[in-house]
Amino acid sequence: MIIVMAVNASEPQVQHVLDRVGELGFQTTVSRGVERIVIGLIGDESRLNPDAIRACEGVNDVMPVSKPFKVVNREFQPHDTIVTVGDVTFGGDGPWPVIAGPCSVETPEMMIEVAHAVKASGATMLRGGAFKPRTSPYAFQGHGELGLQYLDAARKETGLPFVTEIVDPADVGLVSKYADMLQIGARNMQNFALLKAVGRSHRPVMLKRGLSSSIDEWLMAAEYIASEGNTQIVLCERGIRSSDNQYTRNVLDLAAIPVVKKLSHLPVIVDPSHGTGKRYLVSPMAQAGLTVGAHGLMVEVHPRPEEAWSDGPQSLTLELFAELMRDLRALEASLNSNKAIAAAR
Amino acid sequence: MIIVMAVNASEPQVQHVLDRVGELGFQTTVSRGVERIVIGLIGDESRLNPDAIRACEGVNDVMPVSKPFKVVNREFQPHDTIVTVGDVTFGGDGPWPVIAGPCSVETPEMMIEVAHAVKASGATMLRGGAFKPRTSPYAFQGHGELGLQYLDAARKETGLPFVTEIVDPADVGLVSKYADMLQIGARNMQNFALLKAVGRSHRPVMLKRGLSSSIDEWLMAAEYIASEGNTQIVLCERGIRSSDNQYTRNVLDLAAIPVVKKLSHLPVIVDPSHGTGKRYLVSPMAQAGLTVGAHGLMVEVHPRPEEAWSDGPQSLTLELFAELMRDLRALEASLNSNKAIAAAR
Amino acid sequence: MIIVMAVNASEPQVQHVLDRVGELGFQTTVSRGVERIVIGLIGDESRLNPDAIRACEGVNDVMPVSKPFKVVNREFQPHDTIVTVGDVTFGGDGPWPVIAGPCSVETPEMMIEVAHAVKASGATMLRGGAFKPRTSPYAFQGHGELGLQYLDAARKETGLPFVTEIVDPADVGLVSKYADMLQIGARNMQNFALLKAVGRSHRPVMLKRGLSSSIDEWLMAAEYIASEGNTQIVLCERGIRSSDNQYTRNVLDLAAIPVVKKLSHLPVIVDPSHGTGKRYLVSPMAQAGLTVGAHGLMVEVHPRPEEAWSDGPQSLTLELFAELMRDLRALEASLNSNKAIAAAR
Amino acid sequence: MIIVMAVNASEPQVQHVLDRVGELGFQTTVSRGVERIVIGLIGDESRLNPDAIRACEGVNDVMPVSKPFKVVNREFQPHDTIVTVGDVTFGGDGPWPVIAGPCSVETPEMMIEVAHAVKASGATMLRGGAFKPRTSPYAFQGHGELGLQYLDAARKETGLPFVTEIVDPADVGLVSKYADMLQIGARNMQNFALLKAVGRSHRPVMLKRGLSSSIDEWLMAAEYIASEGNTQIVLCERGIRSSDNQYTRNVLDLAAIPVVKKLSHLPVIVDPSHGTGKRYLVSPMAQAGLTVGAHGLMVEVHPRPEEAWSDGPQSLTLELFAELMRDLRALEASLNSNKAIAAAR
Repeated sequence: MIIVMAVNASEPQVQHVLDRVGELGFQTTVSRGVERIVIGLIGDESRLNPDAIRACEGVNDVMPVSKPFKVVNREFQPHDTIVTVGDVTFGGDGPWPVIAGPCSVETPEMMIEVAHAVKASGATMLRGGAFKPRTSPYAFQGHGELGLQYLDAARKETGLPFVTEIVDPADVGLVSKYADMLQIGARNMQNFALLKAVGRSHRPVMLKRGLSSSIDEWLMAAEYIASEGNTQIVLCERGIRSSDNQYTRNVLDLAAIPVVKKLSHLPVIVDPSHGTGKRYLVSPMAQAGLTVGAHGLMVEVHPRPEEAWSDGPQSLTLELFAELMRDLRALEASLNSNKAIAAAR
Repeated sequence: MIIVMAVNASEPQVQHVLDRVGELGFQTTVSRGVERIVIGLIGDESRLNPDAIRACEGVNDVMPVSKPFKVVNREFQPHDTIVTVGDVTFGGDGPWPVIAGPCSVETPEMMIEVAHAVKASGATMLRGGAFKPRTSPYAFQGHGELGLQYLDAARKETGLPFVTEIVDPADVGLVSKYADMLQIGARNMQNFALLKAVGRSHRPVMLKRGLSSSIDEWLMAAEYIASEGNTQIVLCERGIRSSDNQYTRNVLDLAAIPVVKKLSHLPVIVDPSHGTGKRYLVSPMAQAGLTVGAHGLMVEVHPRPEEAWSDGPQSLTLELFAELMRDLRALEASLNSNKAIAAAR
Repeated sequence: MIIVMAVNASEPQVQHVLDRVGELGFQTTVSRGVERIVIGLIGDESRLNPDAIRACEGVNDVMPVSKPFKVVNREFQPHDTIVTVGDVTFGGDGPWPVIAGPCSVETPEMMIEVAHAVKASGATMLRGGAFKPRTSPYAFQGHGELGLQYLDAARKETGLPFVTEIVDPADVGLVSKYADMLQIGARNMQNFALLKAVGRSHRPVMLKRGLSSSIDEWLMAAEYIASEGNTQIVLCERGIRSSDNQYTRNVLDLAAIPVVKKLSHLPVIVDPSHGTGKRYLVSPMAQAGLTVGAHGLMVEVHPRPEEAWSDGPQSLTLELFAELMRDLRALEASLNSNKAIAAAR
Repeated sequence: MIIVMAVNASEPQVQHVLDRVGELGFQTTVSRGVERIVIGLIGDESRLNPDAIRACEGVNDVMPVSKPFKVVNREFQPHDTIVTVGDVTFGGDGPWPVIAGPCSVETPEMMIEVAHAVKASGATMLRGGAFKPRTSPYAFQGHGELGLQYLDAARKETGLPFVTEIVDPADVGLVSKYADMLQIGARNMQNFALLKAVGRSHRPVMLKRGLSSSIDEWLMAAEYIASEGNTQIVLCERGIRSSDNQYTRNVLDLAAIPVVKKLSHLPVIVDPSHGTGKRYLVSPMAQAGLTVGAHGLMVEVHPRPEEAWSDGPQSLTLELFAELMRDLRALEASLNSNKAIAAAR
């Protein structure tokens, strides 16, 4: 940690800071420049609350030099974490896992119809919301346990495992009884009670990036889960808020994918449906996500988007999903072959 | 609701949209302009999911003309809601309520020391965190029920009611046993399970604005609470995220205060501590908040900010708080007398 | 244009609005709903300043239904515009044009070294700054005309045409004497005097998206150029500002590429160097940009990034650029062959 | 400057960095912590381009510890700069200067009508746009020199000096012939050619904050003007862009006012008209701006806002302006008297 004193900091103020950090067990190096004094701390930064120093008189700035996340930090685990959900693996070298399904679980017939269709097109996992976090209390809030049963039925029919969102720590037991993977939605990325609850479960977790979350905050949310003992976490980039939402619901931050792969050993997938909010953007952004190195894809699919109970405008039809899968598999083959050529150079 | 068709929308696409909205029980007006067709809907907008229309082919845009919030909407209740917490009222004409106290409840002695001091300076209510939503899982998470007991002891000593944050729906019963008012923090503004749970309680609620929440989303979060039957809600502006956080933690959006007073009948207060993150900005922004018409103030106070377990840099000392209260009461008297003069003109 | 009256708008207020728009030559349709009155206007929206109506009492909102841009709007020109710079074409079906070169023109030797190297790797056009818009007045501001001469020399050596930034309307004549294409930088996207000046020139223009520009503002900036008679405009997505700049300088908004291709007939390219600010992100984001349909690429290359006078951290070395070009051409071949297969389906 | 090496940086990488900064004439302190090496630099930071170090292998981060602005930095000039425009002073202890007038100069009669009215209400300076930076090329672009003549006529009638916007470096001579103060608008805050041109003039400058400008960028823009020799600069906070523009055009960042007063010795005023875009918010935000310590106010006034050629919805009528001035002067008197009481404590 670096402590930058104000230009006009007095000698007693400097001494006070040195005493405080000494009491806290840190060694220091003091650089007395022409303009100002800079104090470097040697010791375990995680044991010091930077705010305690920021609150001292004469301190201009306190700059941590270590990342606040530990368990999920690649610096301390260089190899990739592989997350396994049934037969599906995230983070490995195999074919890209693709999760598909409707925003909300609507009827059992529709779930089975979608599940068969997406499986036929090559999806490897199912999605669907039984507990829905909706902006309006008057919008459909999900079928709850009944929705989980519809998902279970679709899984039995097709063999596809499923992921579903959880919104209340009290539901972890119930949802874990059914779901193969628990999803933390964007609005709950900093619902720490929920993060701890899924961290204590033994289910793999998909952690969506928050609406305007920084990358550090996102990884700290993963750290919450991991610090409870559950490191089977898949990150999911789904777009952040910008000052322009006229043509897209969010800005899908694809560069975040290589960034988090550098910072963390956890796998990271892309969700172009929420990331754009527009059907015509889903396929190009899905392909771009996989080009930048995402470990998989999650996409909303509905047989009749006009009749969808939620997220119709961003849902692919079954036909468009089939087309996307053909394009994705062709792109995957090309990228793999390019990689092989590059490796041989 | 207004439906704007694409310039090149075909006649069958237009007819399909008209059929859909007709089936849903809406009357329509069709304006055929030179460039494009615009369809106006007459009927109860809240019965129509705009996404169902957005998902139709040939539709360019769907623009709701009514607000999505109803119970908290001033259009449907012109008079102000008064929220009462013990002797303290928010939204009335009396002196500005001022809530003060530390970020975290630390020790019983410290709580009592702060409570006596802020009461002596004129605070009307106490704050303190027993359940702390912290960015890091390794940071102090609050004392839990013990913290509530410390707050209770401080209340008994001083007679000041208290507000404290709640982070898990399962804790509503426990926290309501102690607290006079339940706080929903910024990170939980769209934790809908929590909003419903406090909506079913009979405690007044303070609802902080989310980290990058729009005003509509904030009022929809209030609507969640209200729709469960609890309209004793105080809104709290605490700053939003911007692209520059070098000198302030957030941008305190003071214009949001007159904006929500126009849109809603709920009282709204200002929190300049979280809104700025810097001690030297708290007093000027508190005064500005009250100048624009906030119904009260919440501010962090700590006897020794350097030793605070959280939020030290933005906490006022007891002396600075006393000074702020003198300035506030003088400003309040001036504004009231200016208002009286203006009214007499 | 749609005029939404306030719920409590009076009959005289409604009549006043109807009179105003009637005076201005518009026909109206009036929808009297249960809650409020909505007025639709029929006529040429571009002749009406929406603010004139917004300023009327009793008006709640005014919603334009047409886009404010005309010449660059695909609704009025369905076919793609092709921009030609020497042998290079933007917007056509040929191989992707790739613009490469240093941030600043430094020395003549370095420009020639870079030009030869990037040409050998397959770049089709050169870039380099002679007039540099720098955040600090103490940073290198560019060599001015001398820099243009160095670029000219590199062009003569290699045959590659070049693009260079222009920052002052007074320099249009001078820069046009040398440059094949004029660049408007992000900070000058709404420098309307400059836009008009390049609009009156006969040089193709590259128009970068502003730092936090909306898509409509970007296309309106293009409209400024086009309305002066110059429609040889290439748009360039280079990232927008977000609340997190810890790991990337900007958020490269790749979805903006298919969005502007839908809205406008102008070609659009991607600049992953400024879009990310980090060398290791340039290649993946370049490939992703081309996957989503960008019409070309602009990338910063420097033989010794550590010694670059500006933008070293985001500059590719000559070796990394060569590698990127091999990957790009392989990806391009794959995408073309996938497209052919898809077309044959 | 602080250089943070990567956790896995090699010894040769560390040595390379030490050699580089040594060559550049800096002394260093090296802290070898448990996890990583941190290098502190002693010397004049402004002589080192941090990007040159960021571009080195093994470097994780480079953190400047000094501000990039010098002439406008309060650390190097503790006393306030006073800017004088005719009889009006910004930054002193006298009554708040208030600049009022229409967005655009429309007709000579209207300018004279406004000038007389705002003077009668207590305005001390006039504003009006002769060169208008408009988002659309089809919107009124200002009368140019004719507009300056109308402003001149209004000045002659009332004795009020005026400020007007300049958008092209070529116009500095022309506009300086008429105007008492030159305004740099938000869209041109980083139009460095324009900043240098007004820096070489001898007219006082009003520098508006950019649309999404950080505080450092704003002060660096002021530094551009000052570094050319003109330190008669008034900063103007006019709101920044956020993700919610449904109810306000911008977020007026009032905390920025005490922040820049701490960082710089330049005076800073507030513009609540552009800062909010809504008439009903202008008066409360003007009063709040002055409460937080702004050195003055700029506000848009139009006799008939419905007929305004631009910015009608945010323009005060003559009556509302008169009311605002009465409220402001009463508030000013109160704040002064409170200050006197506080000083006497």
